[in-house]
Amino acid sequence: MAGETATDTDHITREELQLATRNHGMPLEALRNEVTPIGLHYLLIHYDIPAVDPAAWRLEVCGRVRRPLTLTLDDVRARPSVTRPVTMECAGNGRARLEERPISQPWLLEAVGTGEWTGTPLAPLLDEAGLDDDAIEVVFAGADRGVEGGVEQSYERSLSVDDARRGEVLLAYELNGAPLPPQHGFPLRLLVPGWYGMTSVKWLERITAVDEPFAGYQQAHSYRFRRDPDEPGEPVTRIAPRSLMVPPGIPDFLTRRRFVLAGDCHLEGRAWSGWGPIERVEVSADGGATWWDATLADPATEYAWRAWTTTWHAGEPGEYELCCRATDAAGNVQPAQPEWNVGGYAVNAVHRVPVTVTERA
Amino acid sequence: MAGETATDTDHITREELQLATRNHGMPLEALRNEVTPIGLHYLLIHYDIPAVDPAAWRLEVCGRVRRPLTLTLDDVRARPSVTRPVTMECAGNGRARLEERPISQPWLLEAVGTGEWTGTPLAPLLDEAGLDDDAIEVVFAGADRGVEGGVEQSYERSLSVDDARRGEVLLAYELNGAPLPPQHGFPLRLLVPGWYGMTSVKWLERITAVDEPFAGYQQAHSYRFRRDPDEPGEPVTRIAPRSLMVPPGIPDFLTRRRFVLAGDCHLEGRAWSGWGPIERVEVSADGGATWWDATLADPATEYAWRAWTTTWHAGEPGEYELCCRATDAAGNVQPAQPEWNVGGYAVNAVHRVPVTVTERA
Repeated sequence: MAGETATDTDHITREELQLATRNHGMPLEALRNEVTPIGLHYLLIHYDIPAVDPAAWRLEVCGRVRRPLTLTLDDVRARPSVTRPVTMECAGNGRARLEERPISQPWLLEAVGTGEWTGTPLAPLLDEAGLDDDAIEVVFAGADRGVEGGVEQSYERSLSVDDARRGEVLLAYELNGAPLPPQHGFPLRLLVPGWYGMTSVKWLERITAVDEPFAGYQQAHSYRFRRDPDEPGEPVTRIAPRSLMVPPGIPDFLTRRRFVLAGDCHLEGRAWSGWGPIERVEVSADGGATWWDATLADPATEYAWRAWTTTWHAGEPGEYELCCRATDAAGNVQPAQPEWNVGGYAVNAVHRVPVTVTERA
Repeated sequence: MAGETATDTDHITREELQLATRNHGMPLEALRNEVTPIGLHYLLIHYDIPAVDPAAWRLEVCGRVRRPLTLTLDDVRARPSVTRPVTMECAGNGRARLEERPISQPWLLEAVGTGEWTGTPLAPLLDEAGLDDDAIEVVFAGADRGVEGGVEQSYERSLSVDDARRGEVLLAYELNGAPLPPQHGFPLRLLVPGWYGMTSVKWLERITAVDEPFAGYQQAHSYRFRRDPDEPGEPVTRIAPRSLMVPPGIPDFLTRRRFVLAGDCHLEGRAWSGWGPIERVEVSADGGATWWDATLADPATEYAWRAWTTTWHAGEPGEYELCCRATDAAGNVQPAQPEWNVGGYAVNAVHRVPVTVTERA
């Protein structure tokens, strides 16, 4: 996030590789699963996974509140609970497809996953603490600590009071019916459905109401849309629409090129947006020159991806470029080409899958 | 595995990145865990994770046997079971540290993990099938299919009859007390403790006894030690010794450089070898010029890593290079520098961790 860029799209730096071998995307064949199995959901961890002793762990609710709270994990788990499938995506997904590429976690397209999260709504907890009238934001602090852009810090992000009080915002302690795995924020994380993953602070230990805008590194420096590194930029918030497909046929190990037998080919995938329900997914077999509509499954719950299917008539052997693109109820459509910004955020260009069609034996 | 190499150690190709964003290593802070949580164990998947319907799935035991068998998953699970912690490592771990680097999955150091695997011993099943006297090898075939080195194939590997009949070899259907996750071979995989991971065929569907050496791609071409691409080479088998440490202090997000406060610093890690128990782990704070012995935990079970700890007196602020190296009971010691071979296998040079020591406030 230090603002370095690379323009050689065929060569990734060693620093990017170090991040790519720690963090990982969701192999796209896992788009078959409505709920992503643990271990296939994407992961982005800025610093180290902290070792948290759940018996010693406490959640502090403090700052501009009338009744500061200190909760044990049992206290949190004893509160009313909700279980909800939520699609989460890294704000940097697609970054490594930019021609002028910010040097950071080099995501191609796989930084997504849908978890079935269980937790307790945040708003009633804020009500119990009693936000002071002058509280304008709520800051969420994790136990993970490191250095970024020369600044030593714990990972911290804020939400406006209105966003923090939205009904869908949870403090989550289970994923897919089991306690959070260490890498997903054990024992407790924030979960903000519809927003990019940087918002859903992991290893949560403190919630602080504040009376001025939070100016921490991850809020004021990172995760902002900028055309120029020196402008303040607009904050990255909700997830831009994206559709992805299960790559059809079989892959080449190294190139990941796909080989499909001539004939009818089933295509399937999922699409999502933080700005409204998915209303349309279109598919192309000629690199985006012509499109047809895929069939959408019944709408999923509000914050989970929506499945789509179609049949591609792969008649003639040869080279093809499959594409898919989603449109949401707010009218947002995936662009044909990646659109650049300094941090490489929300790069949601159409998914393109080169395929070689071969004769049936 | 196609034999391409790169000599620019600071630049990784896009094809390597595609593999690195799908597959992933174990973040080294997870060395804290005796058993690696699901989702942190390393993963190397040559093709795609296949979709296997467990109700329709069958295991065939066939070829040079007197009584071919067809087993359902319930049949396999009804057999005597064993649960055993086993440390598994990818044969290519360390490959991306070579100066002349084979173009393949670009592992730095993290391709390891220890699972608690539950399964049924293989030998009694082979006895039930009754190997013919002329059977010399047993071939294990997975459901995963792709193209590699121009050859369309299912993933297949063989063992000699003697190795296949060893008591520790299992057909595993659970990891850490739950059914295998899709990415670890659901519903059944081979597990060969002490050997590199390519041996433990995932998504197993067929076991074939054969009367001549198996010449499949993954046996005769890949996973062989070669100094020259045209020589046949020796097969890669057991795991060479390695020790790794939990990187101390806190990291820089991008460079992963570590920052440690001056004073006594607890160091911990784990070490393993497929050639015998770990007998010694040494630690250096000066890049390997001088070493001291770490304290080993009680020996773990035979095929799991062994924990080590020590204290580093980080007295003066400055730049340091921490190292650790293991010695096994067979007398194998980790080399100081990576040792090259065509495929980049078993590159087990000492672990080096650059650290900046800073003053306490």
